[in-house]
Amino acid sequence: MQLDRINTPEDLNKLTIKEKRELASEIREFLIEKVSKNGGHLSSNLGVVELTIALLSSFDLEKDKIIFDVGHQSYVYKILTGRKDKFDKLRKYKGLRGFPYRHESKYDIFETGHSSTSISAALGIARARDIKKEKFEVVSIIGDGSISSGMSLEAINDLGYNKTKMIIILNDNGMSISSNVGGISSYLSRISINEKYLKVKNKIKHCLDDTKVGNFSIKVLSRFKDGLRTFLVPSQYFEAMGLTYIGPIDGHDISLMTKVMKRVKKYNKPVILHVVTKKGQGYAPAMKSPDIYHAVSPFDLKTGIKEKKQNDYSSEFGKAMLKLAKENDKIVAITAAMKNGVGLKDFFQKYPKRSFDVGISEEHAVTFAAGLANENMTPVFAVYSTFLQRGFDQIVHDVCMQKLPVIFAIDRAGLVGNDGETHQGIFDLSYLSLIPNLTVISPKTTKEIYKILKWASKQKSPVAIRYPRGTDEKELSPIEKIKLGKWEIISEGEKIAIIATGKMVQKAIIAKEKYNLNVKIINALFIKPLDKDIIKELVNKNYNILTIEDNVLNGGLGSLITMKLQKNNFNGKIICMGYDDKFVEQGTIAELLKQERITSEDIKENIEKLKA
Amino acid sequence: MQLDRINTPEDLNKLTIKEKRELASEIREFLIEKVSKNGGHLSSNLGVVELTIALLSSFDLEKDKIIFDVGHQSYVYKILTGRKDKFDKLRKYKGLRGFPYRHESKYDIFETGHSSTSISAALGIARARDIKKEKFEVVSIIGDGSISSGMSLEAINDLGYNKTKMIIILNDNGMSISSNVGGISSYLSRISINEKYLKVKNKIKHCLDDTKVGNFSIKVLSRFKDGLRTFLVPSQYFEAMGLTYIGPIDGHDISLMTKVMKRVKKYNKPVILHVVTKKGQGYAPAMKSPDIYHAVSPFDLKTGIKEKKQNDYSSEFGKAMLKLAKENDKIVAITAAMKNGVGLKDFFQKYPKRSFDVGISEEHAVTFAAGLANENMTPVFAVYSTFLQRGFDQIVHDVCMQKLPVIFAIDRAGLVGNDGETHQGIFDLSYLSLIPNLTVISPKTTKEIYKILKWASKQKSPVAIRYPRGTDEKELSPIEKIKLGKWEIISEGEKIAIIATGKMVQKAIIAKEKYNLNVKIINALFIKPLDKDIIKELVNKNYNILTIEDNVLNGGLGSLITMKLQKNNFNGKIICMGYDDKFVEQGTIAELLKQERITSEDIKENIEKLKA
Repeated sequence: MQLDRINTPEDLNKLTIKEKRELASEIREFLIEKVSKNGGHLSSNLGVVELTIALLSSFDLEKDKIIFDVGHQSYVYKILTGRKDKFDKLRKYKGLRGFPYRHESKYDIFETGHSSTSISAALGIARARDIKKEKFEVVSIIGDGSISSGMSLEAINDLGYNKTKMIIILNDNGMSISSNVGGISSYLSRISINEKYLKVKNKIKHCLDDTKVGNFSIKVLSRFKDGLRTFLVPSQYFEAMGLTYIGPIDGHDISLMTKVMKRVKKYNKPVILHVVTKKGQGYAPAMKSPDIYHAVSPFDLKTGIKEKKQNDYSSEFGKAMLKLAKENDKIVAITAAMKNGVGLKDFFQKYPKRSFDVGISEEHAVTFAAGLANENMTPVFAVYSTFLQRGFDQIVHDVCMQKLPVIFAIDRAGLVGNDGETHQGIFDLSYLSLIPNLTVISPKTTKEIYKILKWASKQKSPVAIRYPRGTDEKELSPIEKIKLGKWEIISEGEKIAIIATGKMVQKAIIAKEKYNLNVKIINALFIKPLDKDIIKELVNKNYNILTIEDNVLNGGLGSLITMKLQKNNFNGKIICMGYDDKFVEQGTIAELLKQERITSEDIKENIEKLKA
Repeated sequence: MQLDRINTPEDLNKLTIKEKRELASEIREFLIEKVSKNGGHLSSNLGVVELTIALLSSFDLEKDKIIFDVGHQSYVYKILTGRKDKFDKLRKYKGLRGFPYRHESKYDIFETGHSSTSISAALGIARARDIKKEKFEVVSIIGDGSISSGMSLEAINDLGYNKTKMIIILNDNGMSISSNVGGISSYLSRISINEKYLKVKNKIKHCLDDTKVGNFSIKVLSRFKDGLRTFLVPSQYFEAMGLTYIGPIDGHDISLMTKVMKRVKKYNKPVILHVVTKKGQGYAPAMKSPDIYHAVSPFDLKTGIKEKKQNDYSSEFGKAMLKLAKENDKIVAITAAMKNGVGLKDFFQKYPKRSFDVGISEEHAVTFAAGLANENMTPVFAVYSTFLQRGFDQIVHDVCMQKLPVIFAIDRAGLVGNDGETHQGIFDLSYLSLIPNLTVISPKTTKEIYKILKWASKQKSPVAIRYPRGTDEKELSPIEKIKLGKWEIISEGEKIAIIATGKMVQKAIIAKEKYNLNVKIINALFIKPLDKDIIKELVNKNYNILTIEDNVLNGGLGSLITMKLQKNNFNGKIICMGYDDKFVEQGTIAELLKQERITSEDIKENIEKLKA
């Protein structure tokens, strides 16, 4: 086994090119086995096996700095930087992270979970290096989906203008999570399929194979590159931005990539090296359906992943959208490169003209929705809670200030589990509640999504609907009638009231039943506006109150309720359950809720405190 | 006077081209007179006089939709759409807005205050039109500074890929507010100064002058455009994105622009029309110093604007940065196209290698700062509160999650006055306080900025320092010693404590002195973390509490304090002063504070309520 010989990045130097190719095969087997067992990101990592080997063969990780954009493509890097023995706890509680993690290895120099951050971070590092007059390479590895996000383009705009020495490796597999969209991606595919180019590529390869030529080769390469630019490939996009463009080269050819990278290091300016890879490379099911094998739960290696009928929040949202779109032709759907994840696959198939995938462009998505709403359409932007953070200013400035009736369908709100810190959706109740004109609402079970969505579609102002990852724990009948700012009394009880929101209502009911608690349970269907009448009644009747939310406490539901109680001269006690002021790590949601002390038992204990 | 003849956009049709040129001169005089009297945005509006006349001569405003990006360049549009009589109350309380405002005119179809939103909004409108099978034109007018922001590029990426019919007019004056930076802007300037192009332009003009040619001219124009592309101008940047590029044309030639626009309307695809204008055109002082005349206070027409020695928060911050940079060579400064506004002009001159203007790219700026901090530099990103909203996700994900010691110097926090809704910095205490690992701090006077900045530069985690627009109202001695999470007792008093933050401490002291209030005054120097000891003491000693902040109440200081008091079983009364859950309009800060009930008198009244 070659893999056994690699414990640090330097060990790669001991391998011949033939052995590196064997290593690549072994890594693929390793990845498929570990990910099928534990779940994780498969397709993208299978695609970058050779790229990562070439990278570590070309750069000196003791000084050079390598940043993987949307770090879920860093498994191979983790394997080769001394962490292969930790893959049995990949993405598990207290185990190996699914993303780069600084506390895990000195080779993870910058954490990346959200897309399109790597060029900005790399540029900051490169500029610091230049100020301090140090010498090392800085490399960002970024996919073709991520590079077309606004943040990446802002960084390229800065980089190309100021000509800072650094390297962008564009890992072009023609897709981000599902197929890519956008002018840049279509431009890239025009480059990659240019047949004339392929002939020239062979010539380049030939030049590079002649290793004696040395620096001269760089010039030859540059000339070929100019040749490409002028006659064959419209590389002017990046050239216009001020970058030196090289490529495209075969991202599964370790030898070629290593040679090109070693030469590119010598350039004293910003370079973009365009590498073409195949997502899922080497594993037939993943090559066939790279989106299905993008992020997977544990699966059977023999049978592969079977698409199963789901009843989680995402798929129930998808069904609700189909139903609503049939009744109301104003409904249109927007996604930022997450059509399958948010449950809109069928909608996009059935209503292609009313479906918009804008790519990894949350800022644009929000204001684009505002434009649609301005013309009396009813746009629904379905997005993960953590990614909507990217559109915060646009929600404030473009949607809410003009009170435009955009619907935000916020998936993966609350704890998401194994993706960890970078993906927990535990801030949205806070960052949304502070925005004027915005209604914030959360279904207590999947069964309420359609009703809420329909209600939202009739409002003349923006509505945010947030719901968690996963399925229901307890079936509950949907609320009878939705009315702005009206909560639902689930069950009666004396002296103590639990006000819970979203799926936390299920938790409250489960705890009540389990411990036979004499408490009133209220579904805070609306996080904003609050139900003033119920709050007044609770004050008047001297209730003590427990709030439960799947969000940080600062600025969340408990905070809003506490403020309102104070205004009503509340004299009782209140305890707020939610997340403390910190980032929450990876693990199953159950493990994390236990750690954060939001279990049935914790509810019981808090009720006892309120009784005391 | 031609201007007297224009009461609706259609009236423009009655004017000959000669009369339109007269109109342009009259509008310039009108603008200079009104803005010198009331203050406002001058240079940019002087630059778009002919462009706006051409626009309104080419499009039918009864159906076509026109969106000005960063709407401060819409004064001429307001003059020509029936609002010229309202310019005496421009940017005043209850007066004409300085930005497009839907409640003001049916011709303002989308509100824009922040940069780079117009293409996304226009695209949403255009797609809605196509779904509804309606027919009208959608036009975004955007500057060269705004178009290189990530949000614009995301929108172009979508637009070019999907080939939606709409028109982008790129108003290229070679600068946003001060000089532009970035690869795109340098690329644009290469286009615009191409001398060979100028000769071809004359030929195009000739073709267009022959109006009989009709549709044929479009082809000729296209051919010339292709000619430009191939031989002269690297228009491939936009072409690669999938747009049809036309230009550049002279943005002060009404006749040429009108002809080109009328032809461009016939294109059934996305077009970008590149128009070159001169900021400040027609007013010598503004042409000479367009940045100084960008946004002005009232000034004397004869003498022009005199640069005066300032002692506002921005300039005191600038001085503090100079002092600190001299002592500490790790200090670097970052701005997103606001170097002068944030007070960093001198710093940029003195320390060019430690200064970074990234253009209108707040997302990139924040993560770029994270990269610098990762290499042990001490980056200070100076930014207006309202614009930092653009970097929210990056603050969470890239800075705070990794606990990188970035300093955010947040200018224009709180009410900003005449810029109105779109620019009020009244959300930052809320959206920052919800982020783990972030320290939030605010100086009570300008004199504390240096001390706080120095303290922040020694921390090993991120610090946000927020301060308002304008100058101090009351001189106060700076705090003796800063310690994390420790507040400052300003004065003693019995039974009632005012906890104020930032400049609101001055307001509290002024009220105490004016009305001889027997209250304890506490400077909540730290908004996060709170001072637990002082809070405990207030609880133990049965104080009633008044909090005052220059921020919305939801999620702000008062909310954090209320939560903490509750945790400590507070039995007293608390009143929180701050802004209610709504957007605050334009006016002087004094007018707005009166409207929002944050005056000395309101403080006195609330103290009386707490006594009762």
